[in-house]
Amino acid sequence: MKPVTVFALLLLLMSCDSAVKQDDKNAAALLAEGRWVDLSYAFSDSTPYWPNNPEGFRLDIEANGITEGGFFYSSNSFCAPEHGGTHLDAPVHFAEGKQTAEQVPLESLTGAAVVIDVSAKALKNEDYLISVKDVEDWEKEHGALQDGTIVLFRTGYGQFYTDRKKYFGTDKKGSEGIALLHFPGIGPATAEWLAAKRKIKAVGIDTPSIDYGQSKDFKTHQLLLGKNIPAFENVANLDKLAARGAYVVALPMKIKNGSGGPLRIIAWLKN
Amino acid sequence: MKPVTVFALLLLLMSCDSAVKQDDKNAAALLAEGRWVDLSYAFSDSTPYWPNNPEGFRLDIEANGITEGGFFYSSNSFCAPEHGGTHLDAPVHFAEGKQTAEQVPLESLTGAAVVIDVSAKALKNEDYLISVKDVEDWEKEHGALQDGTIVLFRTGYGQFYTDRKKYFGTDKKGSEGIALLHFPGIGPATAEWLAAKRKIKAVGIDTPSIDYGQSKDFKTHQLLLGKNIPAFENVANLDKLAARGAYVVALPMKIKNGSGGPLRIIAWLKN
Repeated sequence: MKPVTVFALLLLLMSCDSAVKQDDKNAAALLAEGRWVDLSYAFSDSTPYWPNNPEGFRLDIEANGITEGGFFYSSNSFCAPEHGGTHLDAPVHFAEGKQTAEQVPLESLTGAAVVIDVSAKALKNEDYLISVKDVEDWEKEHGALQDGTIVLFRTGYGQFYTDRKKYFGTDKKGSEGIALLHFPGIGPATAEWLAAKRKIKAVGIDTPSIDYGQSKDFKTHQLLLGKNIPAFENVANLDKLAARGAYVVALPMKIKNGSGGPLRIIAWLKN
Repeated sequence: MKPVTVFALLLLLMSCDSAVKQDDKNAAALLAEGRWVDLSYAFSDSTPYWPNNPEGFRLDIEANGITEGGFFYSSNSFCAPEHGGTHLDAPVHFAEGKQTAEQVPLESLTGAAVVIDVSAKALKNEDYLISVKDVEDWEKEHGALQDGTIVLFRTGYGQFYTDRKKYFGTDKKGSEGIALLHFPGIGPATAEWLAAKRKIKAVGIDTPSIDYGQSKDFKTHQLLLGKNIPAFENVANLDKLAARGAYVVALPMKIKNGSGGPLRIIAWLKN
């Protein structure tokens, strides 16, 4: 063996040594090399709910000031419909006998996530239905959706979240408002394709619903939830994520027998 | 160089090669080598609240059956005090001007966690105050608490969660019940020591409160929350965690101006 070969081998071993150390890292050390980004809106009396909700989120102040004991104390109670703001649709929401909110396993709520950005088309058409071709085009560029992926759809409508008229297509309430709902969603054919052809954990979207505003039969809900694939709605900040590489933790309030509920969803991104 | 040496070098290089591959892993690949454990109780009408809460958690069924459209639909609304079940104490709960629920940064809610197990002492004394010595003894065995650690205290009282009399020390309600509260907590001297001598992110405990049941001034709350160190109460399943090695993600419902709220807390453990 020539000296130069020995030297090359030694160099390789030195780089190998640092790699071995890297391998020893635990989750905390690895995750410290990135940051968590919040994909959740805060709940308040301006949180938007479906037009047929008579009341939305309400915070009742129980205490907020100095107590008889001389120390400061603040405490509240609150009421809310399950489905509004950044929230979970548990499978039972549209599928009898399927998982309730507290039954959705952490396995379905945590994992590698991708963002399929259809905003160029959806921002031009408030009734846009995300198509199978949209997913196939994404796969051509980034590779096939791997088993266990959380699929987040970005329509670009997140930017309208605080403007009810633009976000829902109407600011009217009640049944009149429901008839006037216009926003993009996942096409039923796409839901069927995802449920049959890919093994995804969950879906998310930056609109009020995974079905588009004009849906009457909520077929996309029926198809995905029917396969115990939960949905995350009103997801925030999807513009901060790349097409691949995020790790999502989506933790709903653990409501026994819930059909869904408030969701805190965050994404880890490498620095 | 002797052949045997060359062979040894080649063997090292082969192991090195797999280590380099390991190094390339992203968060998703690394976290797939472990599992998430739920440290949260579900919310229901049997969720325990402080004795002065007139009502606890309430789920109102809005829809649960076949709709006019012919498909199944389930949807509810709910009401709850912020402080009950597995929940967050935001710093503002006992510290004016400090972080509200939606302001607690993800940085304080995610990270390496340790479990300090004082159950041997606490199960013998329902008024047990976790002492500085308890923490120092833990440090002697496991090393000093590193900056940015989430410190979970295990008193063993989690096993009594569904038995109000054992968990709170009383099943009486109202001010009569408050006077009879008996369960362990973090001693104020320990809170002061942690806030001054260590740089921890957050604390958690498997009792209804970080202050013990007989506390009148909630000094431990004042001291920790006053430093913007949030607290997690009624944490479940702490017996499933080792003293070190867990990574915790604790995501509270994002209530604007909230003093706390429902918390979904999970821990990642390596397989």
